[in-house]
Amino acid sequence: MTPHDIFNEMMAKDQFSQWLGIELISVGPGTCTLQMTVRHEMLNGFGIAHGGISFSLADSAFAFACNSHGRHAVSIHCTIEHVAAVKLGDVLLAEATEERLGNSVSNYAIKVVKPDGEPVAFFRGVAYRKKMEWGKTGVAEQK
Amino acid sequence: MTPHDIFNEMMAKDQFSQWLGIELISVGPGTCTLQMTVRHEMLNGFGIAHGGISFSLADSAFAFACNSHGRHAVSIHCTIEHVAAVKLGDVLLAEATEERLGNSVSNYAIKVVKPDGEPVAFFRGVAYRKKMEWGKTGVAEQK
Amino acid sequence: MTPHDIFNEMMAKDQFSQWLGIELISVGPGTCTLQMTVRHEMLNGFGIAHGGISFSLADSAFAFACNSHGRHAVSIHCTIEHVAAVKLGDVLLAEATEERLGNSVSNYAIKVVKPDGEPVAFFRGVAYRKKMEWGKTGVAEQK
Amino acid sequence: MTPHDIFNEMMAKDQFSQWLGIELISVGPGTCTLQMTVRHEMLNGFGIAHGGISFSLADSAFAFACNSHGRHAVSIHCTIEHVAAVKLGDVLLAEATEERLGNSVSNYAIKVVKPDGEPVAFFRGVAYRKKMEWGKTGVAEQK
Repeated sequence: MTPHDIFNEMMAKDQFSQWLGIELISVGPGTCTLQMTVRHEMLNGFGIAHGGISFSLADSAFAFACNSHGRHAVSIHCTIEHVAAVKLGDVLLAEATEERLGNSVSNYAIKVVKPDGEPVAFFRGVAYRKKMEWGKTGVAEQK
Repeated sequence: MTPHDIFNEMMAKDQFSQWLGIELISVGPGTCTLQMTVRHEMLNGFGIAHGGISFSLADSAFAFACNSHGRHAVSIHCTIEHVAAVKLGDVLLAEATEERLGNSVSNYAIKVVKPDGEPVAFFRGVAYRKKMEWGKTGVAEQK
Repeated sequence: MTPHDIFNEMMAKDQFSQWLGIELISVGPGTCTLQMTVRHEMLNGFGIAHGGISFSLADSAFAFACNSHGRHAVSIHCTIEHVAAVKLGDVLLAEATEERLGNSVSNYAIKVVKPDGEPVAFFRGVAYRKKMEWGKTGVAEQK
Repeated sequence: MTPHDIFNEMMAKDQFSQWLGIELISVGPGTCTLQMTVRHEMLNGFGIAHGGISFSLADSAFAFACNSHGRHAVSIHCTIEHVAAVKLGDVLLAEATEERLGNSVSNYAIKVVKPDGEPVAFFRGVAYRKKMEWGKTGVAEQK
């Protein structure tokens, strides 16, 4: 399966990414760029986008990037630094880059930016790589 | 305004916390406990809850806890460690504890657990405390 | 080997913990408390303890705690929030608590405090648990 | 004062960076690259460099970068992902990049690499920017 095949299989089941309105810009080995637009139901008590929205967009880009090599990979650790408020109607892009691919653990930087390049959030994700492969069936393992 | 008044004012506008189905268990100075139930539209490509769901629940508890003292407070940094898969129909609790209240910065630990106490995620939040107060109007500041 | 035996074997080789002047207060399954005193050569450009000092103390407590179960464990991810300045001559305590012990990954909270309980730093550590055991010899694995 | 002047004033007092054997490669507005060599007294219980060593090197690069604009800046939050073991005699480089400069908060990525570019650790630092300026005297503020 190619990174694009794996993305399609994951995205078809990924109800929350669908709810977010996530669109694929590009996906490849260890990389993924996604886009979405902030809607009314994504706002928080300050009337700006809830912190969980930019996190979730980045987390989806991270998931597609770390699963792109063919083995199931799950999140161990994520960090996010919020650096700008996001408003209703804003378009957000999340760009995931793989910084290291280990045998059991891999490391990603994801930048969330507006279309003009203004940074919104800096996200990092560390993934645990299981032995189970996409397109095969097997017994689930625990991390 | 009491912590409960501030929670009510924030929650009334917080569309995303409403979408998550968040219910208040308790709120006080520097603390907040919330509850929600995982729905179909919250699942990811593995058929379990998207990492953004437990993050968002914890982030809301963090927001209500760090705003409870009366000054506007916004997130600078969050980390989350996912330690257990969350399934459709699972009830999640997020318990926010204030570990330090500084003049400009405050620090919180939020545990996301199932009702039997099984940990799902460990979240930490660092907030920047603005000068603007809840119940007053003023000019927005930048962090 | 008991947690105390493993601590002794690790500490005997741990040149940097020795340089820090680390003393053991207690060690058990998944827990460890250490103490040290800030010396002149640990100060930074502001004349207070370098951020790497409280980090290193906490990191040692994390290492002893996550190796205490008998399997080699190495750090995947650490976070530290600095909340108070540390001065020459200050005594620091680091208290490591295990929050989850998984098969491959385990999670720890470490608080660095002064003897009166004032918090200095909040540290979290995520460890990868190798198959190799203390007291046995074997082939090194990669994480 | 230029970034280089501020570096010199900080480094002259920074006993721990001196103990680490840190050498300046370059410093500019928001950036800093440092180098050091791992010595025997920096090893841990596994006989490799203690996690606090690469952290401290990165933390010094972060400190010089975030203070380079002329205002005193202190660490609020740091994260580090260790991705490769570091051995006795290894040369380490830490390269700090400023990703955002806010009025009160600024954000940095620091990569620790070996001279051939192999990544050793990914560090992120968030700084709180005080009003006090380098080269002036004033009353200390609290974050």
